[in-house]
Amino acid sequence: MSIYEKLKARNITLPQVDPPVAAFVPFVRTGNLIFISGHIAKKDGKPWTGKLGAALTTAQGKQAAQSIAIDLMATLQAAIGDLNKIRRIVKLLVLVNSTPAFNEQHLVANGASELFVEIFGERGAHARSAFGVAQIPLGSCVEIELIAEL
Amino acid sequence: MSIYEKLKARNITLPQVDPPVAAFVPFVRTGNLIFISGHIAKKDGKPWTGKLGAALTTAQGKQAAQSIAIDLMATLQAAIGDLNKIRRIVKLLVLVNSTPAFNEQHLVANGASELFVEIFGERGAHARSAFGVAQIPLGSCVEIELIAEL
Amino acid sequence: MSIYEKLKARNITLPQVDPPVAAFVPFVRTGNLIFISGHIAKKDGKPWTGKLGAALTTAQGKQAAQSIAIDLMATLQAAIGDLNKIRRIVKLLVLVNSTPAFNEQHLVANGASELFVEIFGERGAHARSAFGVAQIPLGSCVEIELIAEL
Repeated sequence: MSIYEKLKARNITLPQVDPPVAAFVPFVRTGNLIFISGHIAKKDGKPWTGKLGAALTTAQGKQAAQSIAIDLMATLQAAIGDLNKIRRIVKLLVLVNSTPAFNEQHLVANGASELFVEIFGERGAHARSAFGVAQIPLGSCVEIELIAEL
Repeated sequence: MSIYEKLKARNITLPQVDPPVAAFVPFVRTGNLIFISGHIAKKDGKPWTGKLGAALTTAQGKQAAQSIAIDLMATLQAAIGDLNKIRRIVKLLVLVNSTPAFNEQHLVANGASELFVEIFGERGAHARSAFGVAQIPLGSCVEIELIAEL
Repeated sequence: MSIYEKLKARNITLPQVDPPVAAFVPFVRTGNLIFISGHIAKKDGKPWTGKLGAALTTAQGKQAAQSIAIDLMATLQAAIGDLNKIRRIVKLLVLVNSTPAFNEQHLVANGASELFVEIFGERGAHARSAFGVAQIPLGSCVEIELIAEL
């Protein structure tokens, strides 16, 4: 199955890509690598706010991470035109808006990681770092940046 | 205008590059990419301390981020000799020393992003992640690392 | 001396590489670069927990960072078969589980940086960012990700 057949089988529609809210661009390509800017979690088009360990459960954070993965795929598609051209999802950096005690960032991050593997197969298996941060722009609960190889 | 004419028009003088205070180097080149170590904000040669959301305002943080951008340009110049050789500012990672409530890291980061675009033009348009961290070495208010393409 | 003679002279035995506890892989190679996933500090096979500025001293954090450097070398070896093939340790990202007041992340990170320089010599001199985070998966005190060049 192509990437798009897999997305369809999962009932995932890639959203339109909004321009960043600040003075930067959503992606930069250099050689065969493409660097995608940090994407924050959104719900109904607005920042998905809240802190893990307080307002949000691990399950909700995982869902937020999955929603970012979909937005990242939309940006990847805007960047290269065809997701089937992705040779490898290289690395995710997963930032979880956390209280000083919450320590399940890896489970939150799985929401994105599992979707990349599901949609891209072996090419979706990536290196990753996940950790808890003090805050995220606009109060969003999760932020993810990505490096992919073409 | 060359990069140096733009810097002069902005009255920006690149500072001397200090060696890092720890066991690492200011930059590493690999292929066409150059990885610049995280630079902390300084004022009058000392760490520019304070936390966003407490001692410092967003405007002050933005100013601190801009001052780091100048230091990063100085390091880039030390690394490659001529800033006109930069093909692209690829990515910034912007760490903002934040209280658990402060969520304007993107506005702070703009202090650096806007200067790179102003000085490097299209080649200065970069991918970026910005987020709030619990602390920064020596209590500095902002830290930025950079990837550039030659 | 080869890398392995230096490790032996330091009485360092590379541990077995455990699979990650989540939906990702320990490393991804793209071109001449290898991206190693964030490794958390472990003690006696379990997460080395605690926060810098509270339960742990800077010296303990530095020791934890050094232990992660050994684990990262083990993963590098698993990835490429022979550590002598490493052309350069390019960059470390060092995350220190910190209270809002602890600001010696650079001293903690030196535990890893100094060992890389000791074992790899000039090829071990790397770019680096270190900062304090709100938490780390499983409550670990330090997490480090690495980029190396072959």
